[in-house]
Amino acid sequence: MPDFSETELRRFVVDLFAARGMSAGDAGKVASAVVWANLRGVDTHGVVRLPRYMEMIDGGLMNMTAEVTVQTAAPGGLQISAGRAAGPVAMDFAVKQLLPCAARQGIAAAFVSCTTHTGALGYYALQAAEAGMACIAVNASIPMMPYYGSSVAAMGTNPISFAVPAAPGNDPLLFDMATSVVSLGKLVQARRTGTPLQPGCFVDANGQPTTDPAVATMTLPLGGPKGSGLSLMIECFASLLAGHPIIADALEKTGKGSRHRQNVLLIAIDIGKFVDVDYFRNEVTRLADAVRALPRTVAADAILMPGERGFKTMAKRRAEGIPVPPAVLKELGGLAGRFAIAPLRVLDGKAPSSVS
Amino acid sequence: MPDFSETELRRFVVDLFAARGMSAGDAGKVASAVVWANLRGVDTHGVVRLPRYMEMIDGGLMNMTAEVTVQTAAPGGLQISAGRAAGPVAMDFAVKQLLPCAARQGIAAAFVSCTTHTGALGYYALQAAEAGMACIAVNASIPMMPYYGSSVAAMGTNPISFAVPAAPGNDPLLFDMATSVVSLGKLVQARRTGTPLQPGCFVDANGQPTTDPAVATMTLPLGGPKGSGLSLMIECFASLLAGHPIIADALEKTGKGSRHRQNVLLIAIDIGKFVDVDYFRNEVTRLADAVRALPRTVAADAILMPGERGFKTMAKRRAEGIPVPPAVLKELGGLAGRFAIAPLRVLDGKAPSSVS
Repeated sequence: MPDFSETELRRFVVDLFAARGMSAGDAGKVASAVVWANLRGVDTHGVVRLPRYMEMIDGGLMNMTAEVTVQTAAPGGLQISAGRAAGPVAMDFAVKQLLPCAARQGIAAAFVSCTTHTGALGYYALQAAEAGMACIAVNASIPMMPYYGSSVAAMGTNPISFAVPAAPGNDPLLFDMATSVVSLGKLVQARRTGTPLQPGCFVDANGQPTTDPAVATMTLPLGGPKGSGLSLMIECFASLLAGHPIIADALEKTGKGSRHRQNVLLIAIDIGKFVDVDYFRNEVTRLADAVRALPRTVAADAILMPGERGFKTMAKRRAEGIPVPPAVLKELGGLAGRFAIAPLRVLDGKAPSSVS
Repeated sequence: MPDFSETELRRFVVDLFAARGMSAGDAGKVASAVVWANLRGVDTHGVVRLPRYMEMIDGGLMNMTAEVTVQTAAPGGLQISAGRAAGPVAMDFAVKQLLPCAARQGIAAAFVSCTTHTGALGYYALQAAEAGMACIAVNASIPMMPYYGSSVAAMGTNPISFAVPAAPGNDPLLFDMATSVVSLGKLVQARRTGTPLQPGCFVDANGQPTTDPAVATMTLPLGGPKGSGLSLMIECFASLLAGHPIIADALEKTGKGSRHRQNVLLIAIDIGKFVDVDYFRNEVTRLADAVRALPRTVAADAILMPGERGFKTMAKRRAEGIPVPPAVLKELGGLAGRFAIAPLRVLDGKAPSSVS
């Protein structure tokens, strides 16, 4: 699998979105979010999404020049109207508005409504943690998995993310889970290879359990009623509190129902308002160290903190390059041709320059 | 199994805590929380806990006359020091402080530290929803389940709860899940009956999977790294942000480590600051109706909303009485004797009077 530098992948994404009419500044925000996912090994949210993003632009679902606006709804709350901006553009705006508000109030919430695919939700929670805050984020999307007991797609795989900073020199804790039992990416992968699916994770179009990747269409909610209930509550908090329902429109098949859009609720807590920041950071690392030192099961090679695998993959891929599968490269080559931008240049064996 | 009225169970709990030196007002708060769990069918958090609560008082773990104090840490944040008060006493205080703060700020957080067993976390999130607010609550406790990859108890089964009000005449949505795959109560039940445990849910003292209730000691985290990561983040948010670590003390076996205590983070959002309240409530019910109307799997009798089973059980038990198993009754009889209070009187066949 050919490897690419972070710089080159970023260059490609920036060129692509600029060719579609996005400002260089905004294209840089999209590139940072997309390539961050690849760097961390969350390849399902990386450059593999670019063809779909181009379709969204073609179909009027993603607006390259959307005006993202903020309405201060309450001392601790912001309503942010994204107007179908690219997810990373709307979310970058939201984080920048949210953090000073949390610093004043101790806790603040930003509702980001009618944005498009935000990518990896943890990317934004991490920004709050890197600014020294604690963050809870939830993301509502269109139906992709059954509600517990239903045979059809009813809920988004709505992720929930938590992030906190740790002691200096230690990675933050970054938790980011979908409310599905496994990601849909595993199905896409199994379809390519023909490998049977893990039992209990997927169903077909009629809601019947299956391990056959050829007939599986949906992933099941994590823990049945737990995952689907959590997803439903995320719709209530991220969508309904912002006045932008997604699921009811989709299930009632209204005109708005089938159009891709996402809503996000970000909550930031200014740690220093509640406890000494250095104490907190040291306690996070003390906790992580105590858990890492526990006796392990025979099957476990290591005990990992939330986000740890991603931080390790990031260090490795920054040093060695980011692998992109040939099938994805072929699609990206097609985009380069269509939008007259330079195709991706493979790493020439030299260490790539890092972009912070 | 003998049935008891809500009034009689409340009377018993009030008498019991009053006999231990608690004020009548505070004993009423404890009784409401304990009997609420029984009414909703969450019997693991009901009167079955009373013997353990008495042990906590005996051992100095629960303080009948603790002073619960609040320190306003920020415009939107409250630090509440519970001083080992009974959970429902500290939490009642916290909810009463939190809601006016959220009404001013749009969003507010209450950190309740060093309380004792809070009972069913959803009880407090529901109070916010009944006051017309949206609520997120997380509860940190001592180690009871392995962290993913560890063979020993490392994490609390730390619950997370979400509640929102619905249209008038409809029950709120009340989501309340433990971060374990199933509750420890199932193990207690299986031990009594000798029934094999569901595979993949329990491990023995060495972290080895087992279906034998005689050797099982711990429930596994929900979805492996998802449940244990979520539990770890709840410890960071509910305990470390309040300056009261639980897990690190327990794992490092410090003096404080083995003593029961809990910390809670409650976040309330004043819906009306962000969206029209009637619109929101109607949208919650529209969403619930759309999901309930979905085609069902062959195995599903009904599609239930978060908390719906509990509301139904509550209506039934208010009308017909609350069953209490003979083994529990025997223990409660022992407590009545020890503390010289009237024993529980079984329902005489007449409908019990309701207590709101």
